[in-house]
Amino acid sequence: MRKVTLALILTLTAGAAHSFAAEDLQASAKALFKPIPTKPPVMKGNPATPAKIDLGAKLYFDPRLSKSQLISCNTCHNVGLGGADLQETSTGHGWQKGPRNAPTVLNSVFNIAQFWDGRAKDLAEQAKGPVQASVEMNATPELVLKTLNSMPGYVKAFKAAFPADKDPVTFDNMAKAIEVYEATLITPNAPFDQYLKGSRTALNSNQTKGLKLFIDKGCVTCHGGRNLGGGGYYPFGVVSKPVESILPRGDKGRFKVTNTASDEYVFRSPSLRNVAITAPYFHSGVVWSLKEAVAVMGSAQFGIQLSSDETDAITAFLGSLTGQQPKVVHPLLPISTDTTPHPVL
Amino acid sequence: MRKVTLALILTLTAGAAHSFAAEDLQASAKALFKPIPTKPPVMKGNPATPAKIDLGAKLYFDPRLSKSQLISCNTCHNVGLGGADLQETSTGHGWQKGPRNAPTVLNSVFNIAQFWDGRAKDLAEQAKGPVQASVEMNATPELVLKTLNSMPGYVKAFKAAFPADKDPVTFDNMAKAIEVYEATLITPNAPFDQYLKGSRTALNSNQTKGLKLFIDKGCVTCHGGRNLGGGGYYPFGVVSKPVESILPRGDKGRFKVTNTASDEYVFRSPSLRNVAITAPYFHSGVVWSLKEAVAVMGSAQFGIQLSSDETDAITAFLGSLTGQQPKVVHPLLPISTDTTPHPVL
Repeated sequence: MRKVTLALILTLTAGAAHSFAAEDLQASAKALFKPIPTKPPVMKGNPATPAKIDLGAKLYFDPRLSKSQLISCNTCHNVGLGGADLQETSTGHGWQKGPRNAPTVLNSVFNIAQFWDGRAKDLAEQAKGPVQASVEMNATPELVLKTLNSMPGYVKAFKAAFPADKDPVTFDNMAKAIEVYEATLITPNAPFDQYLKGSRTALNSNQTKGLKLFIDKGCVTCHGGRNLGGGGYYPFGVVSKPVESILPRGDKGRFKVTNTASDEYVFRSPSLRNVAITAPYFHSGVVWSLKEAVAVMGSAQFGIQLSSDETDAITAFLGSLTGQQPKVVHPLLPISTDTTPHPVL
Repeated sequence: MRKVTLALILTLTAGAAHSFAAEDLQASAKALFKPIPTKPPVMKGNPATPAKIDLGAKLYFDPRLSKSQLISCNTCHNVGLGGADLQETSTGHGWQKGPRNAPTVLNSVFNIAQFWDGRAKDLAEQAKGPVQASVEMNATPELVLKTLNSMPGYVKAFKAAFPADKDPVTFDNMAKAIEVYEATLITPNAPFDQYLKGSRTALNSNQTKGLKLFIDKGCVTCHGGRNLGGGGYYPFGVVSKPVESILPRGDKGRFKVTNTASDEYVFRSPSLRNVAITAPYFHSGVVWSLKEAVAVMGSAQFGIQLSSDETDAITAFLGSLTGQQPKVVHPLLPISTDTTPHPVL
């Protein structure tokens, strides 16, 4: 009887300690991260209206923003595939291979800046890049405007989206409409968000263990905040540079933007939101297994070899970051006319 | 007073005559054409279920059915672009140019057979073609099955779609699911459908004039029935072969399928449903203006030169064939795993 009682006491004590530790961890997590909101954020200087979001959706899905009329934003940032494209690095005009892996569009509105090197300050500026890049959509602002102006459906949609503008069909307004549309592509209610909002059961025990490791090992340093990343610039290979295939030596990252020696191999840390559904990984896109990517981070950033149990737990935790994917109605696109430029391959 | 009365009588008589002629035309149209139904037709031997349609939608939008994982059914049959791709001839794997213009998927379920030469008897058989064609998606059934089986999301979806099958993940079932999904991509309630259902105001006077010409000149011979075409095989250039650019002499059409001399340059007549939004035209795709395409038909098929007013009227009538486009929710695609084959470019 006494034995049983003691065992019971021990169990209760352990339970209380566990509960206390669990509360501590949850409190730490609440201090370090934020849940994805259920409504799109407001874009500074670019208020959303239903008409503007609707126009943005059309533009996002329209391959006529590319010279070949084959490639749309959705080609590389596929809303059905976690907002990315399953390619090591994206394929663009003329089947050319681009230099870096396409980051997901999902929750990208919460990143400090856009592109792996942060060279675009916001989504509107980002949207103008691939449209003009010769290895991507290979168009020009002139071609895009000629195309958009050739279709009454677009002219009307731009007027509705930018009613105060005398000449609403502009390259800037195209980008602004895409920005407000992309701001709707957020993924709330991931298990981890439920956990951050107070749920005790949203994460299983291995995911909880992974979260603790994620904080204790230091992953959170670069991958904190609402997006678990995307909030700052950090060197890839703090302790030890990964092999050339993972960190191509020719791509010096943010150095190209700032021309500052300390920015060599510095990148904007990627958001880990939905990371379990957006393989392959890193800006080079050569690592297909999330578990392997976690192991690479351990050695490159901390100079440690995580145990298999540890990488498993961290990988399980990362799985809890997959949110509710946006429900996207495929837009009906304005109809080409006799004056619409033809595709050029 | 008498003069006024006479004028009134004359007006009334003309009105009655006009009304009589209008009724005649509407009766003729009802005998020659049929409206698009508001519900998808039932596929013989392949009953639709919500689970099967849902799987078909996933497959239709999934670029992982292609070797590059870049090309899906929707790439060339874009549901936002009238079910086609705005290209003269489609662009596929390795940026290769295909031999013929992509027919629209919309209402294709009502065609007698699929492809320009009718070589696939139904949509299920059709679906297997582009997946394997080296200039299109360039995959193999083996690769597709390996890909589908690597994803629990697909295995589950196939089980739900084909509950009676012991081994539901097959290339045939992939095609069947795509078929029932494509059967939902129909466009009812075009102005012409409303006219066929009895409306007197659905067509304007120029469209009515165009309809009369369409019947009287003989266009209806190849372009009758529910789809205004798609119902039989006819030579392109009955009276006079169009120039080589429009009718490439190397593409003998149905001859390749039947190996019968009389089938040289014979094609399945295309459906004219939604033709105003699916430029460019003909199997060669070199004619971008619908009005020009109508003129080409006049000279090639009838040896006549239609007047500008006549081509205008027929073109206006063809505009009345644009139906209510399907509302498509972009599917969320099953998640790749560590065993999913990687894209090969």
